[in-house]
Amino acid sequence: MKTEVRYFSGLDGVIASETKISFLDTVQGEIVIRGYDLIKLSKNQSYLDIVHLLLENRLPTVEERTSIADMLKGEYHIPAEVLNIFRHLPQVTHPMDGLRTGISALAGYDNKIDDRSSKINKERAYKLLGKVPNIVANSYRIINGQDVIEPMNKLSYSANFFYMLTGKIPSLLEEMIFDLSLVLYSEHEMPNSTFTARVIASTQSDLFGALTGAIASLKGSLHGGANEAVMYMLNEAKTVAEFEEILHKKLYNKEKIMGFGHRVYMKKMDPRALMMKKALKKLCDEHGDDLLLRMCAAGEKIMEDEKGLYPNLDYYAAPVYWMLGIPIALYTPIFFSSRTVGLCAHVIEQHEHNRLFRPRVLYTGERHSLRN
Amino acid sequence: MKTEVRYFSGLDGVIASETKISFLDTVQGEIVIRGYDLIKLSKNQSYLDIVHLLLENRLPTVEERTSIADMLKGEYHIPAEVLNIFRHLPQVTHPMDGLRTGISALAGYDNKIDDRSSKINKERAYKLLGKVPNIVANSYRIINGQDVIEPMNKLSYSANFFYMLTGKIPSLLEEMIFDLSLVLYSEHEMPNSTFTARVIASTQSDLFGALTGAIASLKGSLHGGANEAVMYMLNEAKTVAEFEEILHKKLYNKEKIMGFGHRVYMKKMDPRALMMKKALKKLCDEHGDDLLLRMCAAGEKIMEDEKGLYPNLDYYAAPVYWMLGIPIALYTPIFFSSRTVGLCAHVIEQHEHNRLFRPRVLYTGERHSLRN
Repeated sequence: MKTEVRYFSGLDGVIASETKISFLDTVQGEIVIRGYDLIKLSKNQSYLDIVHLLLENRLPTVEERTSIADMLKGEYHIPAEVLNIFRHLPQVTHPMDGLRTGISALAGYDNKIDDRSSKINKERAYKLLGKVPNIVANSYRIINGQDVIEPMNKLSYSANFFYMLTGKIPSLLEEMIFDLSLVLYSEHEMPNSTFTARVIASTQSDLFGALTGAIASLKGSLHGGANEAVMYMLNEAKTVAEFEEILHKKLYNKEKIMGFGHRVYMKKMDPRALMMKKALKKLCDEHGDDLLLRMCAAGEKIMEDEKGLYPNLDYYAAPVYWMLGIPIALYTPIFFSSRTVGLCAHVIEQHEHNRLFRPRVLYTGERHSLRN
Repeated sequence: MKTEVRYFSGLDGVIASETKISFLDTVQGEIVIRGYDLIKLSKNQSYLDIVHLLLENRLPTVEERTSIADMLKGEYHIPAEVLNIFRHLPQVTHPMDGLRTGISALAGYDNKIDDRSSKINKERAYKLLGKVPNIVANSYRIINGQDVIEPMNKLSYSANFFYMLTGKIPSLLEEMIFDLSLVLYSEHEMPNSTFTARVIASTQSDLFGALTGAIASLKGSLHGGANEAVMYMLNEAKTVAEFEEILHKKLYNKEKIMGFGHRVYMKKMDPRALMMKKALKKLCDEHGDDLLLRMCAAGEKIMEDEKGLYPNLDYYAAPVYWMLGIPIALYTPIFFSSRTVGLCAHVIEQHEHNRLFRPRVLYTGERHSLRN
């Protein structure tokens, strides 16, 4: 069958896949995750509830909630040899590159690597969810010459992750807000990294390979790297007026300003950004210092007035992570960590209903002849 | 602008990108590489000529040919720390996973990692082309408990690669045939691995990340992993009759048979396969043993008669590599190594004319309401 083809740059608006996992419903204004609105979920469900929802296709019972937490705790440790690998990486290694190398190396420890059944893929996903916070924290620490930090089993999943990132046990508010950020980052239809993971998985390659590719994708400044870029930009200013000046200057110079706009949401505010903005307000109240909130709000107004662009999740996640005391270089690795569950769900689905991704090109080069 | 969307599973027939690099012209029956037919190129040009063509957009002069060979020789060595990383990988690590970990780690040694200009990307590509054979050979050797093998600078690029894979300096025929295989694998429009690399690069992520994702993609049995699968299948039989029986059995059991068919070529023979078939014949003549050629020819006939499918490059590359004495586990890493130049050309082009890949989905899941 000959199919008529048309070309949309960046596959803009092109449907790449069927999925039962998630969908950005711009008409009803919902981020649909396994049928539920993510924003509503985020008000009452913790990250591990979302993990269960994404991997088991329903919210957990009370017993299942405990059982999933215990199961993940059993997977917190990573092989000493993987820690040794981090010791051989140059100190200038980007945290996402260290993380990528660690996840890539971990593949050698999976003794069922060739089994891509849903059962084994799901087991593999839970194991990875247990280990990723440890890999994120310790790859960063070791590359930067710090001591290894051990997971603390008495803490919740999110509190332990927070502890491993900062060396501090979080307050209840800090834990709740950090957990909320993981919920909001957990899954989001078909962004570049999820697409990368599905494209890779479609060759019948394994979950580790798919995640490795997703980390590479998330590193880019047009994707996961944006939350770090936002914080560096905020840190350039010491006052609201200074931040406004920086933004106006960037706009004048036609520089890309990170943290605004989203291809799918277009001219509306990313509803996740609003949740993070509220969390930022709570942290500001707690600290008795609302400078970052006022700076962000001023930036929001400028971008709306000048460009008609609205904040995305990264814009408010960045100052939240800053106020939580998390090193900037870990913002994108945290994005990957929270998205690991969504990525795993997509790889499982891809392996269940697989067709190899193999598109075509529009050749715009020359043609030459060659005598033999 | 609202665009009408239609869904083609696996992006079959969908144009994902404009490119001036290559194009499978199924009408004129040409694999167009920078304007030239790859099959014609393969008759008179060596792999390094193709490297020059792909990265510089023209065939090299005699001086350029020498200069590129010298430049790559200057890049043969890899950091001792990367070799140490391989020493920490479990012995069961898949060679493609070891290779992936090595390329991922190498990112930390690039002191211009954030520079994605064409000039620096091209320098980076040449450096990688120098190092990849070393990484392929030594990741495999170290993981398998063998000694490190040092590159031999007096040999040509392909002869050195062959030497590092096998421990033997190739005969002139072996070198020519191995070089031909690199030429034929060098570039092929938009297969899954190239698409993966471009999707990753489109976030403004770097060449190392894009290549890491491409290795993960190539590992899959529906892509690069096919050449190894072909050899394992050939090795199940000791005679032509046995091989025929195996194929008939697989067909009866509706198992997928690797090495046949190609989404783009459809019902025609991959022209690269014919070149490799001729190379296999030369090796058989040299060895005075044509069993593998007769087995392959018999398999070709069965698949044409029973399924209307024709061999692809992997089908004849596998027995060629076998007769060259290369370990089966290295066939897919060699595929990556030869394709590195094509992947680099695509990443450079993507960074030059970038638009983020961000497709949509067709949501087929349920919708639930949730009370707050």
